[in-house]
Amino acid sequence: MIAEILSVGTELLMGQIVNTNAQFISEHFPETDVYVYYHTVVGDNEKRLKECLLIALSRADVVITTGGLGPTQDDLTKEVVSMAIGKKMVVNEEVLKGINGFFAKKGRRMTKNNAKQAYFPEDSILITNKMGTAPGCLIEYQNKIIIMLPGPPREMQPMFMESVIPYFSKNTSHKLHSVFIRLFGIGESSMENKISDLIKTQTNPTIAPYAKSGEVTLRVTAKYNAKSESYKNIMKPVLDEIDKRLGEYIYSYDNIDLKEVVFLLLRDKHLTVSFAESCTGGLLSKYLTDISGSSEVFDSSFITYSNESKIIQLGVSKKTLIKHGEVSEQTVSEMVSGLQKKTTSNLVLAITGIAGPSGGSRKKPVGTVYLGLGYKKKIHTQKLNLWGSRDRIRHVTCLHAFNFIRKTLLQEENV
Amino acid sequence: MIAEILSVGTELLMGQIVNTNAQFISEHFPETDVYVYYHTVVGDNEKRLKECLLIALSRADVVITTGGLGPTQDDLTKEVVSMAIGKKMVVNEEVLKGINGFFAKKGRRMTKNNAKQAYFPEDSILITNKMGTAPGCLIEYQNKIIIMLPGPPREMQPMFMESVIPYFSKNTSHKLHSVFIRLFGIGESSMENKISDLIKTQTNPTIAPYAKSGEVTLRVTAKYNAKSESYKNIMKPVLDEIDKRLGEYIYSYDNIDLKEVVFLLLRDKHLTVSFAESCTGGLLSKYLTDISGSSEVFDSSFITYSNESKIIQLGVSKKTLIKHGEVSEQTVSEMVSGLQKKTTSNLVLAITGIAGPSGGSRKKPVGTVYLGLGYKKKIHTQKLNLWGSRDRIRHVTCLHAFNFIRKTLLQEENV
Repeated sequence: MIAEILSVGTELLMGQIVNTNAQFISEHFPETDVYVYYHTVVGDNEKRLKECLLIALSRADVVITTGGLGPTQDDLTKEVVSMAIGKKMVVNEEVLKGINGFFAKKGRRMTKNNAKQAYFPEDSILITNKMGTAPGCLIEYQNKIIIMLPGPPREMQPMFMESVIPYFSKNTSHKLHSVFIRLFGIGESSMENKISDLIKTQTNPTIAPYAKSGEVTLRVTAKYNAKSESYKNIMKPVLDEIDKRLGEYIYSYDNIDLKEVVFLLLRDKHLTVSFAESCTGGLLSKYLTDISGSSEVFDSSFITYSNESKIIQLGVSKKTLIKHGEVSEQTVSEMVSGLQKKTTSNLVLAITGIAGPSGGSRKKPVGTVYLGLGYKKKIHTQKLNLWGSRDRIRHVTCLHAFNFIRKTLLQEENV
Repeated sequence: MIAEILSVGTELLMGQIVNTNAQFISEHFPETDVYVYYHTVVGDNEKRLKECLLIALSRADVVITTGGLGPTQDDLTKEVVSMAIGKKMVVNEEVLKGINGFFAKKGRRMTKNNAKQAYFPEDSILITNKMGTAPGCLIEYQNKIIIMLPGPPREMQPMFMESVIPYFSKNTSHKLHSVFIRLFGIGESSMENKISDLIKTQTNPTIAPYAKSGEVTLRVTAKYNAKSESYKNIMKPVLDEIDKRLGEYIYSYDNIDLKEVVFLLLRDKHLTVSFAESCTGGLLSKYLTDISGSSEVFDSSFITYSNESKIIQLGVSKKTLIKHGEVSEQTVSEMVSGLQKKTTSNLVLAITGIAGPSGGSRKKPVGTVYLGLGYKKKIHTQKLNLWGSRDRIRHVTCLHAFNFIRKTLLQEENV
């Protein structure tokens, strides 16, 4: 089936918000064999909305609207749809009672505007909204299906996943299953080169590469008949081949990111870490502590941004800083030694580098970063030559740092 | 004039990317009296693209396309436009030479596919692309204007700002000027209440409130005739009134954020800072060091995530931790004292709190945060009761921390 997403809202046309609803729906609809061919955005204007709706009904089997279900005069999606398809608006007593109760609880009386949210085109099926007061609805009309959902993503998304997807799934025995393979240490084009034959000849499963600053993800999607097939069998030959060619770069098959992989590794091994950060300025620690429960593995960090603080807090020698510079293998090694003395962590990692945009030189351009890792009485170092903006360099440095930890811990297992 | 944005690309319909181009253009076009009434997204398909183009030409004065200008078979925007309006495709020799040179430099020969990028509908005006190989173009056709830009935002954005905006500006003597007033410490609805009469009766300038987690921005936009009016005169009465009612919450009129305001304050006063972070885990330091040049004011931070590290690194007493808990006024004060001993910074700030989602109790629920600030031998503390996700609590804590520093430094000036 072909779908069109019709997003209603002047704030989209003024560029105040970006249309993430269209992206979300487009991404998930194919799971039920519904394919999005058009997105349209129109303002809160009766005439233009009606015209857009009629165009959508002329070229798509499914029209899904987002926005315009609220209580104000501006919200007119349901009203325009009912008019366009010649249906009356009828009240849903249960919804009306719910809205009444909502205001009673607050010690206020429901206004006429709010009652508007309890009216729906005749014969429509209600879609419950657990996150807000405006329910959605679905109506079948002359072999077409019209679905109306609210605009706020935190309301729209669960309604789509919990009501719309199941509605279409029941009509199809075909299902989709995706595996997200996450890679680090290889660029998008190098990766594509290594599997270009697989991408070109893909049928089922399909393979889609995505790049995000410093990282690559491959989505492998199998289409299968849930009654007679197993997606595992369909996927296996392709997954095996990808693993053979790209295995050294793959760090996850579960769509979890590097920091989570490192967190789980450390937790399973009952290890704690501490960091010393210079150019990343706290970003590495921030990433690890994004994870609730990171206190199980994370002890402390020293953000030694100034040279003086490297000397005072970590005991880096002034001589080293003068002779080799703050961005050097020697300095990062001394930062590691300092960390080992100051903390009781099992594994410590230090970072010093030039994140830019200024501070680079011919010998040490912006993007020069040293990592130092101390584990089991050994100090390992790594030099990175990164490119891009300050934000990118800081972010990619953290990815390398997590990967350094990951590789060190996995190597140990293989010895 | 009324505009429609027609974005071409199957990756948008598959939800692989979100249509930020439509947002960007919608936001900036009104500066030249062009108003976006429709967004449409369609795939790389000749028939459907042509149909969408004809609909757009029937309802808008300006049709601006993004995407489909590249070298592959899939890229067919220029071809479809020229067909739809009955123009021949003609080669632009200069562009062709440029593409040839691009490949020669790489020691490769230009393929036929790449030559495609040098062909444009007859009579069109070229739009230079400094960031890529595919130029855009503009063509006037029967009182309509069709503009074709490439899809990648880093190519499209400068082309739009440097070529499209000036093209339309020359036809209008009206200009827009916006001031962004940034506020902290007041919610969106309280702010709206305080100025609801101004918002309701707005004509010129217009007032638009925006909320972003923990912060509020007011955009005040004046429309003026550049030849005969000054935007300052139009804005002044409204800006004065807003300042009178909301001045205590306003921290910037220049659309710079809290961390930058703090950075500039510290720099101008030749002060340095150090932080001790517990629940924010490095985020406060990360925010400050997002600013290139922050080394002028930032010395170091201690991220003391574990209780043990609070004792070892900052000298917080075990007794205090047991008696009052790690999230308490007493603990944060001792963290401040520890920081003052460990660093030579003029101002130090410490944070301890419960970011959640777990770790809360009835007495200290998730969102309980203490800030401690040490400056000129005095220690000030502040208790926050925040709500929301772990990410939100950590982010809003940092905003409060920066605001605490800002208020302390400004108070000093007023004494």
